[in-house]
Amino acid sequence: MNDAARPALRAGVVGLGMMGRNHVRVWDEMVPGVELVAMADPDPAALQRAGSGRRARGYAEPERMLAEEKLDLVSIVTPTGLHLPVTVAALRAGANVLVEKPIAATREEAEAMIAAAADAGRMLTVGHIERFNPAVRELRRRLDAGELGRIFQVHATRLGPLPARIRDVGVVVDLAPHDLDVMRYLVGSEPIRIYAETERRIHTEHEDLFNGIMKFANGVIGILDINWLTPTKRRTLTVTGERGMYVADYLAQDLVFYANPEAAETWQNRGADGFGAPITSVAEGEMTRRPIRREEPLAVELTAFAEAVRDGGPPPVEPHDAMVALLLARKMVESALSGQVVDGAALAEALT
Amino acid sequence: MNDAARPALRAGVVGLGMMGRNHVRVWDEMVPGVELVAMADPDPAALQRAGSGRRARGYAEPERMLAEEKLDLVSIVTPTGLHLPVTVAALRAGANVLVEKPIAATREEAEAMIAAAADAGRMLTVGHIERFNPAVRELRRRLDAGELGRIFQVHATRLGPLPARIRDVGVVVDLAPHDLDVMRYLVGSEPIRIYAETERRIHTEHEDLFNGIMKFANGVIGILDINWLTPTKRRTLTVTGERGMYVADYLAQDLVFYANPEAAETWQNRGADGFGAPITSVAEGEMTRRPIRREEPLAVELTAFAEAVRDGGPPPVEPHDAMVALLLARKMVESALSGQVVDGAALAEALT
Amino acid sequence: MNDAARPALRAGVVGLGMMGRNHVRVWDEMVPGVELVAMADPDPAALQRAGSGRRARGYAEPERMLAEEKLDLVSIVTPTGLHLPVTVAALRAGANVLVEKPIAATREEAEAMIAAAADAGRMLTVGHIERFNPAVRELRRRLDAGELGRIFQVHATRLGPLPARIRDVGVVVDLAPHDLDVMRYLVGSEPIRIYAETERRIHTEHEDLFNGIMKFANGVIGILDINWLTPTKRRTLTVTGERGMYVADYLAQDLVFYANPEAAETWQNRGADGFGAPITSVAEGEMTRRPIRREEPLAVELTAFAEAVRDGGPPPVEPHDAMVALLLARKMVESALSGQVVDGAALAEALT
Amino acid sequence: MNDAARPALRAGVVGLGMMGRNHVRVWDEMVPGVELVAMADPDPAALQRAGSGRRARGYAEPERMLAEEKLDLVSIVTPTGLHLPVTVAALRAGANVLVEKPIAATREEAEAMIAAAADAGRMLTVGHIERFNPAVRELRRRLDAGELGRIFQVHATRLGPLPARIRDVGVVVDLAPHDLDVMRYLVGSEPIRIYAETERRIHTEHEDLFNGIMKFANGVIGILDINWLTPTKRRTLTVTGERGMYVADYLAQDLVFYANPEAAETWQNRGADGFGAPITSVAEGEMTRRPIRREEPLAVELTAFAEAVRDGGPPPVEPHDAMVALLLARKMVESALSGQVVDGAALAEALT
Repeated sequence: MNDAARPALRAGVVGLGMMGRNHVRVWDEMVPGVELVAMADPDPAALQRAGSGRRARGYAEPERMLAEEKLDLVSIVTPTGLHLPVTVAALRAGANVLVEKPIAATREEAEAMIAAAADAGRMLTVGHIERFNPAVRELRRRLDAGELGRIFQVHATRLGPLPARIRDVGVVVDLAPHDLDVMRYLVGSEPIRIYAETERRIHTEHEDLFNGIMKFANGVIGILDINWLTPTKRRTLTVTGERGMYVADYLAQDLVFYANPEAAETWQNRGADGFGAPITSVAEGEMTRRPIRREEPLAVELTAFAEAVRDGGPPPVEPHDAMVALLLARKMVESALSGQVVDGAALAEALT
Repeated sequence: MNDAARPALRAGVVGLGMMGRNHVRVWDEMVPGVELVAMADPDPAALQRAGSGRRARGYAEPERMLAEEKLDLVSIVTPTGLHLPVTVAALRAGANVLVEKPIAATREEAEAMIAAAADAGRMLTVGHIERFNPAVRELRRRLDAGELGRIFQVHATRLGPLPARIRDVGVVVDLAPHDLDVMRYLVGSEPIRIYAETERRIHTEHEDLFNGIMKFANGVIGILDINWLTPTKRRTLTVTGERGMYVADYLAQDLVFYANPEAAETWQNRGADGFGAPITSVAEGEMTRRPIRREEPLAVELTAFAEAVRDGGPPPVEPHDAMVALLLARKMVESALSGQVVDGAALAEALT
Repeated sequence: MNDAARPALRAGVVGLGMMGRNHVRVWDEMVPGVELVAMADPDPAALQRAGSGRRARGYAEPERMLAEEKLDLVSIVTPTGLHLPVTVAALRAGANVLVEKPIAATREEAEAMIAAAADAGRMLTVGHIERFNPAVRELRRRLDAGELGRIFQVHATRLGPLPARIRDVGVVVDLAPHDLDVMRYLVGSEPIRIYAETERRIHTEHEDLFNGIMKFANGVIGILDINWLTPTKRRTLTVTGERGMYVADYLAQDLVFYANPEAAETWQNRGADGFGAPITSVAEGEMTRRPIRREEPLAVELTAFAEAVRDGGPPPVEPHDAMVALLLARKMVESALSGQVVDGAALAEALT
Repeated sequence: MNDAARPALRAGVVGLGMMGRNHVRVWDEMVPGVELVAMADPDPAALQRAGSGRRARGYAEPERMLAEEKLDLVSIVTPTGLHLPVTVAALRAGANVLVEKPIAATREEAEAMIAAAADAGRMLTVGHIERFNPAVRELRRRLDAGELGRIFQVHATRLGPLPARIRDVGVVVDLAPHDLDVMRYLVGSEPIRIYAETERRIHTEHEDLFNGIMKFANGVIGILDINWLTPTKRRTLTVTGERGMYVADYLAQDLVFYANPEAAETWQNRGADGFGAPITSVAEGEMTRRPIRREEPLAVELTAFAEAVRDGGPPPVEPHDAMVALLLARKMVESALSGQVVDGAALAEALT
């Protein structure tokens, strides 16, 4: 789609697996002011499949695409091991880059990518898509507006069956960065102490069950419950605070608020609490489902990226935050393998 | 109620606060083969209130009641500090005793009560009522029948607002023993490592927010999420295993089973996963709500107690289990205060 | 229970089947200022069962009980055929009477009972218990406060399996009076036109499936969906009006309000409505669960009865309303059997 | 997408409003063996918007498109008043046609379209998309497999706010044909008697609230609850029968089965039914959510259309069924306006 008043930004996608094809679809159909002009993948079948019915040109190699197309925006959706070289190539070709999570495989690679963006004077951001889930954005607005008062606990649940796609890392590194990033984003404080347990139950090589506890500097407790062993998909974030509790459902794009009951009121329930005994209990409060405009998170994310590039504004997700999310996930694995708490300097190094 | 073929067992209740009045009601109306003949409480108003409309005789002092009534069964529902003396008195008077949780305030008191029962040749059991929730009993049956296969994780949630009754301990010692007991009961293994975080947010003296992680000897991970800060009541137990996942809801007395999807099947969902992208995902499995005969857990518990006494069978809840649940809760508090894992001998001493 | 400042009202219960035993329990334990002094049933086992553990005296015959006890309040919970003679006897003995629904078997009987109450200068009310469900009372409060604005439609659902108790009438006469009464109570207008369909599927003699439509004088449409063929119990009342929709759940004692969306706002959902197409839709509004103090409806009903007698106030449920509910149910059956609408004078005669 | 073994069928779309753009997207991206080659709309902006990023050619007039393109499959998504002329033109040009519902505005137009298809020897089908909702297809499979036994009642709910798009007919003619069609499709019998009530509450010209009852020849009762006045979207179909009850949710693409309880078993619930009274009730049965592969109904529908054309098979939806659904909706309006039942010959003429 094109806004005639301003020339469209030119976008390209590298890597046309399942996620890459999503980027192609969203750039091509859903981001105002951007034109998808090119895509690259070494596999001709993938190129054919993603490009079918679309005007964008296909390339076997990203370098040729970058040379011939003069792109403003590039989505990098390659295997993690290629994030560094492809990102650097795109930045040097003058493009702004959104690289899919995880930003890289190691701290060193991530730092090299961040440096390359600074050198090229271009934006680098990372596809931490859960920040763009409408339920999370609405939650953030309401927390900022003080609706919960002080936060006590944040509880992230990310459960489901073993995905069909090949996983070359365990569930912690694969999935926990989503929730670690969202937690830092909402809590506004750094963790000072973490502990985790993991198990390998079904997967042949990596852990597939993870539970973690974090204590943040401002007192908030963060809980993570993440695995590939649950028959049904469940992705929720529960934030409990002074004035009540919010439950965000990523899948339903739903946000429900449970208000605290009136503090001073106790109810004499005669015979009403299940089994006939009169009791005195604290009254329950209201439960409200906030209306949320449902949107496709990837469309929100790519639109935010395009707008940030256009406005010269900061990256929607700072690459440093993405690196921290990855390193914290690694610390969780460390804690689980050692059976020890990770805190102090050993934890702090993941935050720098 | 009375079964003419066998003489009714004679029951009494000591302590006529809210929970004591429940014991009175249940003994008096709902347990076959038992007659409630007496109750004791120093407060005449409490005595009057509990006894109104009932045939049972009232006493200001339990000792007089025990002397005059020749009881078979006694419920002890006094403040925790009186559990030891009243239990010992009742056992010596020849009664079998069900004492409300927590069994006692300290290990020494609990051990003295257990010894007194052995000396008197009478049964001592503890009111760990959650074992008698129909959803938990049904869950136990199905786990024993191998329906889940091997258990991976047990996740207990016990949330709600600050209760109106006076709490002279924190939320961990007050509530966690319920879930620690049910977990040991279902998992059939001992914890080898635990870690906890707590916070004191609203309560003036004790912690009101608790999260704990446990690793059991057989590899199961146990998670506890318990607080007095949540506007709505939620009490659930989720057990994830080889063949699927069970979710028991204590309040609804509900048990739902999520079967694993067919392992080998992947679905080509064209455009069906939320936002238009064709994806390959693992099929979801069936979700089944098992029908459960709803019952009042206290009635199930007191009936089980009476039947065990009649049949000379073992106590429905071994007092040693109740002691372990209390001591494990204490270890959780210890871990939270120290910011350290508790394992090895330091943990094992809670289990002996 | 007794309030020492005023002498307790003396209550008795005639008919000690399952519902009668509920009346006994509630009078005896849950209504302030009332003392249950007597109960009557020809069956000694029923007398024994209901009276076990209670102070109230038992009688084989209601006439003897009325003669010897000087009662202020009598619950009549006998088979419908005995409602007339027992009610008249109780009224003549100086008691105020609450008779269980249906008020009687025929209009003539109902009218005779109403006349006897007038002659005796005593109150006659009918056990239309659903009016006392806390969700219905809260709904009535909010409708009266204008929260819905003008009512458009009222939809009553009353579904479940075939009950074990003996039914000597069909599902329409057995259950529809509940909802017909609540609808008239909430809508504040009379029906001018009704139509129904019924079927007899499982029951050997009477209809067990019923659907009805009513048009009220003020334009409201009433819908009834009632049967004994549904595997699960569902009892809800949905009221749709100018400002939104209320859903009351009798079983959960729950009231949920769906606010209308902001009228002028349309949302441009890009790719968010299920399958990838950008659409314009009307925004949804908030959904709020109102906190309701849960109570036992029978306790609320008997307390309201006792208070009305004490205060000389009107009956909580006017016996004429109960008679109308019964006659409207009969008209529904008539419509179904004839395959015709019932309106005009043929309908109006049920309302007088 | 193209299957190299067989030449792709060539598809075109006439009418590029919101629904037309859905047809464009689905033909272009989601139907195997079909190539979207052309689209037509008099509005250049609509043409531009639908065609952006796609290879298909755009035309201002359908006649030119039909002349120049040699199409096998045409979706007609124009205003209802143009269904007849455009359908006839497409059939005469040798294309097979899927026309969106309603098939036409009048019986005469529908009959003319059906005749034109016969004359041209081409297929005409109608976009009764709800038949292709995966929950409905799964429900049909299970009903055909006898899982419910004999059907007693079918209850369709189709509620929501006033849509933003212009409606030139009332809610009955706009929405009821969906459910009338699905009911005939599932029940396998014709209605012999119908009755309806409608109201016009918010809409300036047409009715926006509708309730209908139908009696089918085989005894099934059909209920319809459809309006534009509900703040939240609800689209469900409940089928109650001999062996239990199915609830299909169109929006969630969900199918839940409630099994009948074991007939002979009654449960003695001691104190478990809400408020302390022991009761005897019929046991509840199991509730099972069947796993359903979620799909976009429009994709399922257009794929079924393409396959039927390829295989020479019958139309997925017979145009005569679509005509009957429309005429039955008209009869419902008639009944509501007259306050009379419609049966006998007056109803039968809608079925021929």
